[in-house]
Parts: sequence; structure tokens; C-alpha cells
Amino acid sequence: MLSTTPRTTLGRKKHRAVTDRSVLHHVLDEGLICHLGIVRDGAPLVLPTGYGRDGDTLYLHGSTGAASLRTAAREIDVCVTVTLLDGIVYARSVNNHSMNYRSAVILGRAKPVLDAEAKMHGLKVLTDHLAPGSWEHAREVNAREFAAVSVLALDLAEASVKMRAEGPDDEPDDVGADAAWAGVLPVRTVFGAPEPSADLSPGRPVPPHVSERAATAP
Amino acid sequence: MLSTTPRTTLGRKKHRAVTDRSVLHHVLDEGLICHLGIVRDGAPLVLPTGYGRDGDTLYLHGSTGAASLRTAAREIDVCVTVTLLDGIVYARSVNNHSMNYRSAVILGRAKPVLDAEAKMHGLKVLTDHLAPGSWEHAREVNAREFAAVSVLALDLAEASVKMRAEGPDDEPDDVGADAAWAGVLPVRTVFGAPEPSADLSPGRPVPPHVSERAATAP
Repeated sequence: MLSTTPRTTLGRKKHRAVTDRSVLHHVLDEGLICHLGIVRDGAPLVLPTGYGRDGDTLYLHGSTGAASLRTAAREIDVCVTVTLLDGIVYARSVNNHSMNYRSAVILGRAKPVLDAEAKMHGLKVLTDHLAPGSWEHAREVNAREFAAVSVLALDLAEASVKMRAEGPDDEPDDVGADAAWAGVLPVRTVFGAPEPSADLSPGRPVPPHVSERAATAP
Repeated sequence: MLSTTPRTTLGRKKHRAVTDRSVLHHVLDEGLICHLGIVRDGAPLVLPTGYGRDGDTLYLHGSTGAASLRTAAREIDVCVTVTLLDGIVYARSVNNHSMNYRSAVILGRAKPVLDAEAKMHGLKVLTDHLAPGSWEHAREVNAREFAAVSVLALDLAEASVKMRAEGPDDEPDDVGADAAWAGVLPVRTVFGAPEPSADLSPGRPVPPHVSERAATAP
């Protein structure tokens, strides 16, 4: 079960809350980027970044988002949000237009991963999420690169999932009046055909971990 | 030109900064959802929500994101981030894997729109972004709905755009060694076929503002 601390208990539309931890994992695994929120000089700052999940730990690149995060060798309060947009909901009334979506919101303190073995594991998790198969296929991280990068870990302890996955929720009067078309326009994220780098050696084939991903929506 | 206050001047990878205001507008117009960051009890909170742009004003639904925003009849510090993910960048080295993207970050104080005419305009802008054509097609907002909803306006004065739109940035040694496949796997957001509501009157056709959108990627 997901936690239900006051911070992650939904204040409205409680029926949209999901309390199954496997749903949280699924949303995080399907998403490609997260939006990382921090407080800087008392104001909110939200930056897109990659991430990876292993069990109930979320990994982030510590170099994410300018000086504010890089200097955070200490723990830092964050909010990580991953949103999958699934559809535009057209209702009979303008007011009941909506979106179908699944979103995960994780609150907590991101901790720098300092132990070398744990940090290398975090880098593998991040790579496996961004580009499955690349950890095995591409040139490994060398000592200089390893020293220059930092990895943050965030516990999935305080998390909530919210979703909407249904047709329009119209007033009976509007349905009866047949006032307008109503339904859902699905939204999907898809991969296009791989574009080889211009300086790739001629004739080098696209490897299966890329070509097979291209054939599958994330 | 976009503003270059200290808060919106990039701390790293400055070459990724874009200072053309039309690029900001384009990113905002192409995106479907934003991630809205606020500070609640000293901690960051990031929630996905719809938005709409008119000139250099961004509109948000005031009901967005639980009690913290709804009770903000006053101005509130926000960060609104819109990210378009364009591709996964596969490099010869694990370390140089990256993403192609365009992201807009807007900082400022969201102000409640109280004037009735301005508020109705904000609702139209929000609807035109979420579902172009629905403002004219669907049943208009009635007095009860109008009173129940709130609209926030955010000036685009303090904004930055960051983007990456290129192939892998590999080390010469890795290129020379032909160490791995390298290139970009494009990522696109597309619409599926419209799904009519189950209770729609039989035989009612999908209107052009929906069917034509379905045929075009956002």
C-alpha cells in the first residue's frame, strides 16, 4: 500500500487516488522523464530530468538542474512527479472537459549516493531506464566520468498516485439534450525510426536493443 | 528576448539556453500539460495540470492541486514547467547518453483572475488549448459552473527555454574506436482514434475539430 501521510492524502477528488504500490511502480516504469521540484531561495523550481527505479528507490542524476542541486551534497527536500497523459476528454459541456492521465508524486529527501558500488548501481539503474540495453552495449563509465557524476537516491516511502481513466462525466441534462459530441481522444507516446549518428561507421546496423524499442510504444 | 534575471540564467550548459521569445511561445503551444510547482509548508510540491497561453499570459485552473492552491485567493509563487521530450540520445559511451528535449520554465506569481470578462476569457484560452474547437462546439459555461471555477494568470515575464536537438556528443576516442551504435531514437506524442462516449446518441459523427486533431500529432 502507498503511504497516506497528510501530505500525500488527496484533498479533493479522492476517488482518483490509487493505493496499490504496483501501480506506482508501473507509472514510474512507463514514464521517460520526471519533473523534479525543489525550493530555491524560498521559491519553487521545477526541472525535467531522467530517473530510474530499483525496487522502492528512485535514482536521479545529481548534476540535474543547475547549481542549486549540484551544491546539495547534503540531503535536499524534493518532489518528483511523473505524469503519463492518456487522453483528452471531450464532454458535452465546456466545463466538464478533462484529461485522462496517471501521475505519481513522490515526496522526500534525496540523498547523495556516496558508496562507490551503490553509486555505480544507481548509474546502471538510470541507464537501464533511459536506454535499456545500453549498459551492456556501450562503452562503460570510466574513472574520470564516475568521479564527475553524482547520483541521488529517493525513497518511495511517501508517494501517491492519481489517475483518471474514463469517459466524460456529463450532467444528465447535457446527455439528454445531445448537446455535443463526447468522448476521449487518446494520447500516446511513441518512438520513431532510429536516426544513426552522422559520424557512425557506414553500414553499422541498428542493434536490437534500439530497433526493438523503436517498434514498441514506451 | 526572454528575461535573463539571475533566477532564469542557466547555471550550466549555457549553450542550451534559448533567448528567442517565439521559441518559448512555441514550446508552450505544443505542450499539452504543464508541471506546476509550489511551496507548501516549506517543501516543494509538483502537480500536473492543463494550461493555456494568450500572448504573454499563461492561464491555469485555480482548482488545480488540492487545498494549497484553492485557498490561495492571494498571489502565490509558482514555477510552471512545460517539457517536450523529442528523443533518446544513444552515445558510444554510457556516460554520454542523453535526451533531446525542449523545456520552458516560467517563474512568477500566479494571480487570481477576478474580473468576470477576463475570467471568461481565461476559461476560453484554457479550453482552446486543451480542446481546440470545443469552446464553439460544446455547451457553454453556465453561471453555476462559472462561479465554482477559478482561473489564475501568470505573466511570462520571467521565463527561460532550454533545449537539446542534436546527435550524440561522443569523445573522439570513442568515435574512433567505433565502440558502439550511436544515434537518436525519436520520441513523439500522437493522438489515437477518437473513442466516442458509450452514452452518445447512435450514429453521431465525430466532429471535424476532433477528427482533424486526431490526424495530427500535437
